[in-house]
Amino acid sequence: MTEAAWRPVARSRAYELVVDQIEEQILAGSLRVGERLPGERELAARLEVSRAAVREAIRTLEAQGVVRSSVGSGPDAGTVVSAVPSEALNRLLRLHVALANFPMRDVVEARVMLERFSATLAAAHADEARLAHLLALLEAMDDTGIDRERFNDLDTDFHIAIAEAGGNRLVADMTIAIRDSTRRPILRGLEGLGDSWTEVCADLRHEHRRLYDAILAGDAGAAADEVETHIRGTSRWLPGALD
Amino acid sequence: MTEAAWRPVARSRAYELVVDQIEEQILAGSLRVGERLPGERELAARLEVSRAAVREAIRTLEAQGVVRSSVGSGPDAGTVVSAVPSEALNRLLRLHVALANFPMRDVVEARVMLERFSATLAAAHADEARLAHLLALLEAMDDTGIDRERFNDLDTDFHIAIAEAGGNRLVADMTIAIRDSTRRPILRGLEGLGDSWTEVCADLRHEHRRLYDAILAGDAGAAADEVETHIRGTSRWLPGALD
Repeated sequence: MTEAAWRPVARSRAYELVVDQIEEQILAGSLRVGERLPGERELAARLEVSRAAVREAIRTLEAQGVVRSSVGSGPDAGTVVSAVPSEALNRLLRLHVALANFPMRDVVEARVMLERFSATLAAAHADEARLAHLLALLEAMDDTGIDRERFNDLDTDFHIAIAEAGGNRLVADMTIAIRDSTRRPILRGLEGLGDSWTEVCADLRHEHRRLYDAILAGDAGAAADEVETHIRGTSRWLPGALD
Repeated sequence: MTEAAWRPVARSRAYELVVDQIEEQILAGSLRVGERLPGERELAARLEVSRAAVREAIRTLEAQGVVRSSVGSGPDAGTVVSAVPSEALNRLLRLHVALANFPMRDVVEARVMLERFSATLAAAHADEARLAHLLALLEAMDDTGIDRERFNDLDTDFHIAIAEAGGNRLVADMTIAIRDSTRRPILRGLEGLGDSWTEVCADLRHEHRRLYDAILAGDAGAAADEVETHIRGTSRWLPGALD
């Protein structure tokens, strides 16, 4: 005879029930971007929960970039269904990469996949304004007195600009989130380089130029290969990337 | 003379300051997975905010899958830094796809990219247990009396199992989140098929078999091509996918 397994009943907390109801309405298509949720007091009364539970539910949805809420009583006040996934996705991946919930090696492979795709699209779609922006970033990185942190920020912006130029919003958001999640680890890597920084910096500038030239020429295959070589090169000094 | 632009000062709310402090400690590496946050009362006192603000901050972090909190006073009680990005990522993408914050065409292209990558890895790495699981899902989908919802759930599981077999956690999580985000739109598409469902279902079974055979044979290139053909085929009846 097996012994009876007694486990506590999974009891949802009040705020979770509120989140579930709102999410269900979004998934069913009955709550759309731009629509306003009922006020905190009204929602609490309708769902028979406390106002604190409603507020906690709103925080959960805000963290997912699904609603935006503002205090006060003006026309913008209240909680509105919103369309800002990028920042939420970015934070989520940045935190989990920092917690090493995703191994750095997996992150590098994912970056290669995403940025090959973005570079391919950018070679096909980048217009003059996008190209000028990329070039301006390259020129800023050419500054001889540039420090590692500033270089790394511009480098991040360069990769983000390529992802944006590709025109696929979902792929761009994932690319940006992953590139951004490696901003600190890459900076730590750069700081650990000591005197070879000058040399590495020159290499990075050349690699960026080749990538830019391929995009400018509309050569999708070359752009994809250049960005892969570049990312694999930089992971030499990314802790854990080659494990 | 340009008129002075008066805008309200962006004032962070109390819970946001709490979130920022906890996130900063995670990014700096001083808060790690498995570590416990101070209790609600203690955190409120240390940060000089209300307990409600602490609770709202915890909800934000829970929504990101960064902490897990449980009530009570046992050894598991309290708020612990956790390692469960998958569910948070899944929810986030599912909601934003439902809100059409990502156009369906972009979602399909992202799926093609991710699942080509996953199929390639699965062809290289899937072990016997993974292959047996994939085969069991195919056999369940062969059931002649199967309805569209059950078929769609098994179909989702099949794609998820391939992503898991690939072994890259980050790519798998993104693949799963995106496949899952299209579960409802695909079901609606299947429901709109009317009498041609039987025919479509037969096609899907064949496509799944060919994909499985390529993975079984360890043929990465064929596996990637089969999954791409399959995804592009199913997007015929996905609303908005061909816009």
